[in-house]
Amino acid sequence: MTHWVRFAIGERIGFGTLEAGIIRHHEGSMFDGAVPTGERLSLAAVRLLSPCVPSKMICLWNNFHALAARLGVAEPAEPLYLLKAPSAFLATGEPIRRPASYDGRIVYEGELGIVIGSRCSMATEAGAAACIFGYTCVNDVTAADIIEKDPTFAQWARAKSFDTFGPFGPLIATGLDPAAFTVRTVLNGHARQSYPVSDMIFPPAQLISRISHDMTLMPGDIIACGTSIGVGAIKDRDNTIDVVIDGIGTLSNTLTQ
Amino acid sequence: MTHWVRFAIGERIGFGTLEAGIIRHHEGSMFDGAVPTGERLSLAAVRLLSPCVPSKMICLWNNFHALAARLGVAEPAEPLYLLKAPSAFLATGEPIRRPASYDGRIVYEGELGIVIGSRCSMATEAGAAACIFGYTCVNDVTAADIIEKDPTFAQWARAKSFDTFGPFGPLIATGLDPAAFTVRTVLNGHARQSYPVSDMIFPPAQLISRISHDMTLMPGDIIACGTSIGVGAIKDRDNTIDVVIDGIGTLSNTLTQ
Repeated sequence: MTHWVRFAIGERIGFGTLEAGIIRHHEGSMFDGAVPTGERLSLAAVRLLSPCVPSKMICLWNNFHALAARLGVAEPAEPLYLLKAPSAFLATGEPIRRPASYDGRIVYEGELGIVIGSRCSMATEAGAAACIFGYTCVNDVTAADIIEKDPTFAQWARAKSFDTFGPFGPLIATGLDPAAFTVRTVLNGHARQSYPVSDMIFPPAQLISRISHDMTLMPGDIIACGTSIGVGAIKDRDNTIDVVIDGIGTLSNTLTQ
Repeated sequence: MTHWVRFAIGERIGFGTLEAGIIRHHEGSMFDGAVPTGERLSLAAVRLLSPCVPSKMICLWNNFHALAARLGVAEPAEPLYLLKAPSAFLATGEPIRRPASYDGRIVYEGELGIVIGSRCSMATEAGAAACIFGYTCVNDVTAADIIEKDPTFAQWARAKSFDTFGPFGPLIATGLDPAAFTVRTVLNGHARQSYPVSDMIFPPAQLISRISHDMTLMPGDIIACGTSIGVGAIKDRDNTIDVVIDGIGTLSNTLTQ
């Protein structure tokens, strides 16, 4: 298993592997034969960035058996998804900002994120599995009161694309099988979500295969696999929301006004 | 008025201004102080690319008075939009491909596209107007039978994000006011849409201002302003669909299987 991070020191941006608090700096493409430069940096000396720069983030809706049952909605025949704007992406440790124009509920959704490693179009499930670079934590932050605000048009993209509403990270973990993982979301230290990845309606390879028949997936693209039960509002100022997946790490952000 | 194009010759990619069939090659950023290199190329010698590389394309729904009246839907209180995946972008002259997985209606939607020139967040209408770099033609191609296929979730992003479903171009026209323009769509030489830009519910500066309160707009981002009456299916193989806006040019693509 390898942990990949992207970081900044002052104006300099770089990436590398993280182990025991030490980043081994790499050059080239994270997704294709990155080469260590020999430089080592202390994690404490850098600021972590979003671990990659996706050209798109695809967010699943209704992809867990338990949540579909809880909400009383039918399980979908095929993956249902929306797109989150790249301008929303946020690193761990950065503040989620309440939009000045919005005083409604801001909701956390802890999710497993698949990071694509190679160009993927019309892939079989086996081919799709080979296109997975690794996994990260996603908080699919949502201005929940906007989705159904207009009765004629469900505003999914807008509700989920406000600036800072796309935290993912803190790193990309490669070389692991997430099937046995649990996604946990912790609000101000209190557990709010804890659900097994194995409860997915469309698990990762199937998701990628099906979506790759709609659109070409590029290295660095992220598929946020959808959330399960326990979603709730981040109610007050300075509420810290952590998405924790063992084997990957903790994505931690705080809501500010 | 200036016409900006992006082009390829073999492996080389460049951009410049186009006048009377001659491209004046430029260096730097198209959106910020591009400098002519002195090189001139014949338009006939290059292959036109999409004129910029947007980090996102925002597509308006229900933004024309005439179409809202025709469809009998209420005019929206605020802009309603979705996101089209960057993997769908297509240059003029390139084929729109029918997805192998889809045998339903493929619909053209001729639209005015606003190209953002500078970073734009929470802008006033005057500030928003100053963020406009120029305008282009957009064909918001749509797999119409997918939108309402699942009764629980409107699949806007998917229906409009198949590979090749995002043609825009052929160029970006700067230094003009599109308020008096007409958007025309021509299918195999037959006029199908002809509607005035002035019929927009939310005109460009207001659109940008309002959307910039949701998300930061970046240089090169495109807002497809929505379509009006005359939308229809591209029914048969080798149907050529042109979106024509005087002062900008003709975006021409052909549907292939």
